[in-house]
Amino acid sequence: MSKVTCGITMSLDGFVAGPNQSLKNPMGDIPENLLHHWMFDEDDNKQRDEMLNYLVDAGAFIMGSNMFMPKDKRDDPEWEGWWGDNPPYHAPVFVLCENPRESIPMEGGTTFHFVTDGIESAFRQAQEAAGGGKISIAGGANTVNQYLAAGLIDELWLHIAPVTIGSGARLFDGVPNLKLEPLEASGTRLATHIRYKVLK
Amino acid sequence: MSKVTCGITMSLDGFVAGPNQSLKNPMGDIPENLLHHWMFDEDDNKQRDEMLNYLVDAGAFIMGSNMFMPKDKRDDPEWEGWWGDNPPYHAPVFVLCENPRESIPMEGGTTFHFVTDGIESAFRQAQEAAGGGKISIAGGANTVNQYLAAGLIDELWLHIAPVTIGSGARLFDGVPNLKLEPLEASGTRLATHIRYKVLK
Repeated sequence: MSKVTCGITMSLDGFVAGPNQSLKNPMGDIPENLLHHWMFDEDDNKQRDEMLNYLVDAGAFIMGSNMFMPKDKRDDPEWEGWWGDNPPYHAPVFVLCENPRESIPMEGGTTFHFVTDGIESAFRQAQEAAGGGKISIAGGANTVNQYLAAGLIDELWLHIAPVTIGSGARLFDGVPNLKLEPLEASGTRLATHIRYKVLK
Repeated sequence: MSKVTCGITMSLDGFVAGPNQSLKNPMGDIPENLLHHWMFDEDDNKQRDEMLNYLVDAGAFIMGSNMFMPKDKRDDPEWEGWWGDNPPYHAPVFVLCENPRESIPMEGGTTFHFVTDGIESAFRQAQEAAGGGKISIAGGANTVNQYLAAGLIDELWLHIAPVTIGSGARLFDGVPNLKLEPLEASGTRLATHIRYKVLK
């Protein structure tokens, strides 16, 4: 069985993005980098690198449609994701979406596949693609919440930014009550990082 | 000026108590000790003692009515709080409430005073009583949120229990967006403790 991980950044009040995400504001109506400041300016580089690597270290990825395409690009067949010509995944990425679309092979081994028949189907396809390697649930909140609710995430590395933003996409929303076990906690002035095992 | 502190335990999804708090269920409809397990069973006793002491180390305290009396005891003139004959505060405690009531002196230096004219009035009275010493905002969520919104809390020591409970009294609810600075982070398998400076 693949180990299923999720690394995600949230505000202290639980939001992973602000309201009104769009092409111009991928993180919604919040100031630039308010949540992800730690990714770029963390003091302890070795630890930061380990945490950033965790986000992209898997044999297959699953992401929600918002994380691949802003709502204003849903019908644009030319749109190939936020992630540039050589996305950081270097593995198959299964994008949960409503409308079927041809897979998009990118440079560096990333291929975006589009899954229209739900999270279980995407999970099965990711398992097959990962071949026993890790599966990473890349985000956003809605996708992570669905996989948490389904009991399919084994480990969560949460990066808590020291801000509250009051609205947006909330982690754990609608997820049945969870028990977790902190495996490690660390931090700098930019974020507190807690790695949790999700208890079944 | 008094330094104003708040030490409070919340679930990973931001709740400091479950729904339906009552005399029988002071923490609401959540299993016993789900949030406050760390207070009793934390492995690292020295650190735990420091954090518990932080909750009661002040020259004056402010608490919400729920923290002094369950809703079913609001009209009971005999009710003297949850805290026993010798409450842990050993200083004046200003209780925010709707109906005027005589102050209640307890053993050990705690006196409960009842404030019916709002948080600013309670704050002024606490400042006077503390005489330059610390003021602690003891809880619950609604009270802490009001003082956070008013910009009156300097430091927050947050204890994040590794559970989600989905409903109840939520910290930061309705508080204008905050920026904080983590001063220290630590933890065990029972909780992650983050001490924040609230930036003005």
